[in-house]
Amino acid sequence: MNITVRTIADLVQGEIVGDPETILTGPGKIEDAPPGSITFLANEKYAHLLPSSKAAAVLVSRQFVPESASHPVLIKVDNVYLALSVLLRHFDRGLSFEKKVSDKASVSDTAKIGADVSIGEFTVVKQGVVIEEGSVVYGQVYIGDNVKIGKNTKIYPGVRIYHNCVIGDHCVIHANSVIGSDGFGFAHDENGNYSKIPQIGNVVIENNVEIGANTVIDRATMGSTVIKSGVKLDNLIQIAHNVVIGEDTVIAAQTGIAGSTKVGKRCMIGGQVGIVGHLNVADGAMIQAQSGVASEVKEPGSKLYGSPAIEYSSFLRSYAHFKKLPDIAQQIRDLEKEIELLKKQIIHSS
Amino acid sequence: MNITVRTIADLVQGEIVGDPETILTGPGKIEDAPPGSITFLANEKYAHLLPSSKAAAVLVSRQFVPESASHPVLIKVDNVYLALSVLLRHFDRGLSFEKKVSDKASVSDTAKIGADVSIGEFTVVKQGVVIEEGSVVYGQVYIGDNVKIGKNTKIYPGVRIYHNCVIGDHCVIHANSVIGSDGFGFAHDENGNYSKIPQIGNVVIENNVEIGANTVIDRATMGSTVIKSGVKLDNLIQIAHNVVIGEDTVIAAQTGIAGSTKVGKRCMIGGQVGIVGHLNVADGAMIQAQSGVASEVKEPGSKLYGSPAIEYSSFLRSYAHFKKLPDIAQQIRDLEKEIELLKKQIIHSS
Amino acid sequence: MNITVRTIADLVQGEIVGDPETILTGPGKIEDAPPGSITFLANEKYAHLLPSSKAAAVLVSRQFVPESASHPVLIKVDNVYLALSVLLRHFDRGLSFEKKVSDKASVSDTAKIGADVSIGEFTVVKQGVVIEEGSVVYGQVYIGDNVKIGKNTKIYPGVRIYHNCVIGDHCVIHANSVIGSDGFGFAHDENGNYSKIPQIGNVVIENNVEIGANTVIDRATMGSTVIKSGVKLDNLIQIAHNVVIGEDTVIAAQTGIAGSTKVGKRCMIGGQVGIVGHLNVADGAMIQAQSGVASEVKEPGSKLYGSPAIEYSSFLRSYAHFKKLPDIAQQIRDLEKEIELLKKQIIHSS
Repeated sequence: MNITVRTIADLVQGEIVGDPETILTGPGKIEDAPPGSITFLANEKYAHLLPSSKAAAVLVSRQFVPESASHPVLIKVDNVYLALSVLLRHFDRGLSFEKKVSDKASVSDTAKIGADVSIGEFTVVKQGVVIEEGSVVYGQVYIGDNVKIGKNTKIYPGVRIYHNCVIGDHCVIHANSVIGSDGFGFAHDENGNYSKIPQIGNVVIENNVEIGANTVIDRATMGSTVIKSGVKLDNLIQIAHNVVIGEDTVIAAQTGIAGSTKVGKRCMIGGQVGIVGHLNVADGAMIQAQSGVASEVKEPGSKLYGSPAIEYSSFLRSYAHFKKLPDIAQQIRDLEKEIELLKKQIIHSS
Repeated sequence: MNITVRTIADLVQGEIVGDPETILTGPGKIEDAPPGSITFLANEKYAHLLPSSKAAAVLVSRQFVPESASHPVLIKVDNVYLALSVLLRHFDRGLSFEKKVSDKASVSDTAKIGADVSIGEFTVVKQGVVIEEGSVVYGQVYIGDNVKIGKNTKIYPGVRIYHNCVIGDHCVIHANSVIGSDGFGFAHDENGNYSKIPQIGNVVIENNVEIGANTVIDRATMGSTVIKSGVKLDNLIQIAHNVVIGEDTVIAAQTGIAGSTKVGKRCMIGGQVGIVGHLNVADGAMIQAQSGVASEVKEPGSKLYGSPAIEYSSFLRSYAHFKKLPDIAQQIRDLEKEIELLKKQIIHSS
Repeated sequence: MNITVRTIADLVQGEIVGDPETILTGPGKIEDAPPGSITFLANEKYAHLLPSSKAAAVLVSRQFVPESASHPVLIKVDNVYLALSVLLRHFDRGLSFEKKVSDKASVSDTAKIGADVSIGEFTVVKQGVVIEEGSVVYGQVYIGDNVKIGKNTKIYPGVRIYHNCVIGDHCVIHANSVIGSDGFGFAHDENGNYSKIPQIGNVVIENNVEIGANTVIDRATMGSTVIKSGVKLDNLIQIAHNVVIGEDTVIAAQTGIAGSTKVGKRCMIGGQVGIVGHLNVADGAMIQAQSGVASEVKEPGSKLYGSPAIEYSSFLRSYAHFKKLPDIAQQIRDLEKEIELLKKQIIHSS
């Protein structure tokens, strides 16, 4: 798997500072890169590690100026993370799949399985399912009645897809995620007991969506819960019934979005965020981790923080004062004393 | 599946405003209901969508007064959500199950399987298990030694029920939830290492309980973790060892309840709430999403908010001032200046 | 399973107050211990339950002084929880496993399975896997290519271990947890679309680690995500790519740790905590539930609370004032009035 700096630089359209014929053995992290490896520097915080790194080459930004003359060969690129993704794809041997249906899977006679589809051991494929060409379904997956899965999609072990859900092309769903479980809907009956509201809709996941492990996306009460093209969801996320997530929005782990809320395009939502139901979140909103969004986000590109969430820098300003509240209380007590004193002086002087 | 307004109105005991012979083709959401469908209006927020809805009929509350003369046939009911649950149950074709044990399941000879029970492919049923009549166990479920499952309960794929746990009648457990995993208990030994405290109790789930996907309920150290009748748990919830959840309490997604806490009846707990261990939460408590309950909740019907949680409206008042803290700090600086000025004036005048 | 107080006292090196020949039938919780059982009292909060307990004996601390003369036989020990762990291990009949590979499992010919290993039904073991002696792999587990599992480790149903991950000796991984799913890494390409950064590292779990149910540990982008010896992770936890958790750290349920953060040894992290990426958390840090750690924790033994987290007692002091903010605002208004009055008096008097 050895390769020269020149070859990598060509792959990532990089500019070489150093010997282009340097041989590279594989990728590594800056702090523990093996001799001969290629690493990357995307976060200035780690720049001090460069002189002591054993890497033979490093991906850096066009603007990067090394602190010391001693450093690996530089490959300067416009976007370090994008170059890294190209680099790693080159070195990723990945896993090869037998393009066949395991004889230990249980596949309905009425399912339509495309060319070059892989289905692993102990996977269940129920009636009316369609899986299009090139998709990989690992072992131990459950695919309910009439589910449709597009082309070149990858479904990891233990994923459960309930009946009637639709998954697009080029999607990835990690292990033990659940797509299409019932939305959480109950109505009080005349005796005060809960009556289940049947959830007869489905989940629609468009193309190029990646979903992490142990994430749950509930089916709609009616209609569809929709995850639009290019959305990236991390692990352990909760998407409630009838939510819509707009194109290319990314959501970090353990965030929950309550029922019927519509999140815009290209939003960036941190981890452990909660968004209440029946809201609209404008395109490009950026929501800080652990925030709780409790009202409409109308302005595109809004930055929010806090629980309940307010404008990002306002929250930081208020929180800075929150930390000083004991001092503020003392200031007020001091003022009260001063005023008492002034009162006496005035009485005395008058 | 076509049906008249009159038939639906009879089902939900509704009052018709419009033509009772109108033909309905199925249910739909107000914003995208297909022509001929029946929709519902439970949240006033969506009332403005009614004039433009293509639905042929709409479930509304008895008090509803349309804003415009142009609207679908109205069916006025006491409780829109309850009527919706009846309506959707009518239209839900659901899935039919073969009432049989799959020959691809692994069922112990010592298990007792009731009449009309369905057990799916690759499900494991260990020794001493009892499953009573009419229950549906999907594929890929694990049912450990001596587990007892009542009548007409539905267990979705990937659920894991550890040994000795008990599930009641008419329960639903969604995919990949775990019932009866070990409680999180460790003791420091003399060397400062952790020694595992064996968790030899179980989990008891009573009747009419619904549990979402990827939720975890740990077994008790001794005795039982208990989920009482009528409780509804959403997805990704954590219930620790020896917790008791009272009858008809509902808990939204991603909430966690620490060990030995006892939650009362008919509580409503929002999403991402945390409740610390060894507490009692009174009946009917209402806990706002993302709150952190750190002390006893003694008053039935308490409303709580914040982390740590305080009385709901007190939190809102304090938070309103939190948002104005930069102004408050400015006010204090202004007061200090004024007092300095006054001091000088007094000295001057005296 | 009957046993005398004397035998138990010997096991836990306890001092007996009462009749050492008392017969004990099994363990029980103080509030519902059956007659003849042995219970424990570790939390003073429950001491008032002791006189009415039906238990025949109770584990208490050396310092314990009963409030009333009527109480069960006391067994006084240095560490009640540690004694309890010994006691419960004695009474735990547990489950016996057939030390064999189920013929319903799918095990690659190239896997190396040690002596006395148990592998359950519908488990998948891929090529190149090594499982060392005495380990128990329940049914329905997925073990990817080249995974290595040490000795006497227990893997519960539905766990998914992706390719190339390494698990140590004497570990426990509870149901439906996922080890080695892809880290959440994407780079914007020139069109603003997300390009996946391949995650070609792995997860390394050292010895004596326990992991709860439905927890997720992502594989590293390069190198390893590392869970060091003795770490205890609760349920529904998120560990992102390239995180390192130090020896004997315990983390409660639903906590999330973002990418590349390094947590020290013997830390205690509460439930629902979030820690942002690329941070160092010093050894012995104690982080209160629901906190959000947003900056380096440099001081060993730091106690933190709040979101964003600050020093524990500072947070409590500030929060006490937060609760009084409406009063503080009123105080300021009062001061403003007083100053207005003083101003008039000064004008009047001058």
